[in-house]
Amino acid sequence: MQLKNLRTPAFLIDLKKLHANTEFMIGKAEEYGVKLRPHVKTHKTFEAAKYQLGDTLTGITVSTLAEAFFYQENGFQDITYAFPITEDKLDDAAQLTRKIKHFHILLDQYDTFDKVQHYGYEHNITFSVYLIIDCGAHRDGVNPTDPRSIKLASALHESKNTDFQGILTHAGQSYHCNTIEEIKRVAEIERHIMVQFAEKLRSSGVECREVSIGSTPTCIHANTWEGITEIRPGNYVFFDKFQADIGSCSLYDCAASVLTRVIGHYPEHNRILIDAGALALSKDQGATHIIDEVVYGFIKNHPELKITKLSQEHGFIDCEDTIKFSNFPIGSFLEIIPNHSCLTAALFPVYHIVDNDQVADVWKPVRGW
Amino acid sequence: MQLKNLRTPAFLIDLKKLHANTEFMIGKAEEYGVKLRPHVKTHKTFEAAKYQLGDTLTGITVSTLAEAFFYQENGFQDITYAFPITEDKLDDAAQLTRKIKHFHILLDQYDTFDKVQHYGYEHNITFSVYLIIDCGAHRDGVNPTDPRSIKLASALHESKNTDFQGILTHAGQSYHCNTIEEIKRVAEIERHIMVQFAEKLRSSGVECREVSIGSTPTCIHANTWEGITEIRPGNYVFFDKFQADIGSCSLYDCAASVLTRVIGHYPEHNRILIDAGALALSKDQGATHIIDEVVYGFIKNHPELKITKLSQEHGFIDCEDTIKFSNFPIGSFLEIIPNHSCLTAALFPVYHIVDNDQVADVWKPVRGW
Repeated sequence: MQLKNLRTPAFLIDLKKLHANTEFMIGKAEEYGVKLRPHVKTHKTFEAAKYQLGDTLTGITVSTLAEAFFYQENGFQDITYAFPITEDKLDDAAQLTRKIKHFHILLDQYDTFDKVQHYGYEHNITFSVYLIIDCGAHRDGVNPTDPRSIKLASALHESKNTDFQGILTHAGQSYHCNTIEEIKRVAEIERHIMVQFAEKLRSSGVECREVSIGSTPTCIHANTWEGITEIRPGNYVFFDKFQADIGSCSLYDCAASVLTRVIGHYPEHNRILIDAGALALSKDQGATHIIDEVVYGFIKNHPELKITKLSQEHGFIDCEDTIKFSNFPIGSFLEIIPNHSCLTAALFPVYHIVDNDQVADVWKPVRGW
Repeated sequence: MQLKNLRTPAFLIDLKKLHANTEFMIGKAEEYGVKLRPHVKTHKTFEAAKYQLGDTLTGITVSTLAEAFFYQENGFQDITYAFPITEDKLDDAAQLTRKIKHFHILLDQYDTFDKVQHYGYEHNITFSVYLIIDCGAHRDGVNPTDPRSIKLASALHESKNTDFQGILTHAGQSYHCNTIEEIKRVAEIERHIMVQFAEKLRSSGVECREVSIGSTPTCIHANTWEGITEIRPGNYVFFDKFQADIGSCSLYDCAASVLTRVIGHYPEHNRILIDAGALALSKDQGATHIIDEVVYGFIKNHPELKITKLSQEHGFIDCEDTIKFSNFPIGSFLEIIPNHSCLTAALFPVYHIVDNDQVADVWKPVRGW
């Protein structure tokens, strides 16, 4: 199929760029001596996961049970479900634990530990569990300076129904950094907190096999992973305008884009309309902490054009200068690097894989929960 | 199936509320003497469209070709594709024109008219066409005060390959109003501009059968539709927090919600985490022109709780007062009225239909373009 025959909006993946991005992370993990357990939440496809792993089917990280079952059905034998488990999800977790070699769950609440232990006892199952650590993002995770956190790890270690793997964190605060230097500092804090806590555990007699970190900005900019065993970045597969704005990549590295067509010229308002609206781009406003204006993505080759507004299916393009409309004929293509590729990808039932300006393949992601 | 067995996040539809909302609009259209051609873009299901039409299969409005083909396959014979047509979509439009009794397209560009006419001539087909009018939203549509707009209508009227239906507008500016009085003024402007332009056309010898308007806020608050033949509201099926905030409905009327579970307590940060993140709620910030704070939806029965931040799968709930965590046990349900039901619905592969506190049905929407 040719690009010009695609119904728009369409989600494109530049295969060479995706390959370069995935090879970069494989190479860095290898060089720095850590396991790469890539997160698949950004793309949710079998094919991109294989690129992330270098064509093997080793360990991955997922964000939903739907992803976990999808990858299990596709032959993956080592999956971390990187989302705080709760009692209602234990039947599914038990199924996955029985179906594949290594299925890992996460928790950070004593209450949840009790439920997991009780369920394991009742159903004669041992869950492989990570303890989530808060390394400064203040999302999920236990406070590593709180003595109760050691106790919870110790309880996980001692219970017959939990196989304590180790500790895991996500330095989400890296997304709010203003400079690369700041991201490097967050990466070092992330590493330092985790390594220190792992040592505390070990000196308390708690075996801590895994010390797992992961956020694309910190994985890109970390200078050392001493003491870390595993990284779990995800967004780097595609990257996006947000990552380029905070310095994780350049716009050139972005592997995913939304293909759209010009549908109208409105010289009176110096405006172009396109057929990519909120359902094609998502309403994510991007890195507003460092970018003064809200724009919904970057239009390739046209930095002068700005997507200033979205209705459900229409995108509004404005420009400070007078638009030369003849440069953008009705029906002509524009290609948009989205603000946030994870949320944009999630809106498309299929991805069109572009190689040498041709649609080389169509990938179908898993959806839902 | 019982609600308590649902995997969360889940998209719920309260059937009684949906029924009340759809009956309201059927009743108002009947009383005011206009045809109701409801927009299905908010839900994209066969079942909700039937509620919108009072169990008949008369005319509907769609926003994508995927919807058009879906409803055609489900027996609908009268569909308006309410999105500016372009040349690349004419093969599909021709197919639909041949498959069902009435398939209507829209345009507002001379260039597009040429393409449509040429295509029609080449393929021996007559397209049923509406002219889009800009009644103040400055999205798509011709300027009704520009003499060229009459010329374009006249050309559509005279061409053998276009069957000119009439004129159509969307008063999108109603979403930015601050008061109900303002919405009423927009509704009157919308009506007035359309009726006046239709009269101008008729006095120029251009038959203008249809005068079609539609936006949920103006359809709710209009006091008269004199001179209007057809309304095309869509969001009213579900409503949402945005519509409640601008006065189109009350929060009680909202028929769609996201069911989520508490997954963590973080007393140190006075925070609750839930399993509904950006992929369950969308990043739509709601009616920020009248609401000072950005919150991602309204938590039913808990106005004191605020969803202040979303990561992909986690929702952050904060509170001005100290949260009494024992009131929100881990695993317990919360129900969220989304900011923007169209964008939230689009994230769910299925909807769970709730009647008398039971899951009465599962509806599957069409996705993509």
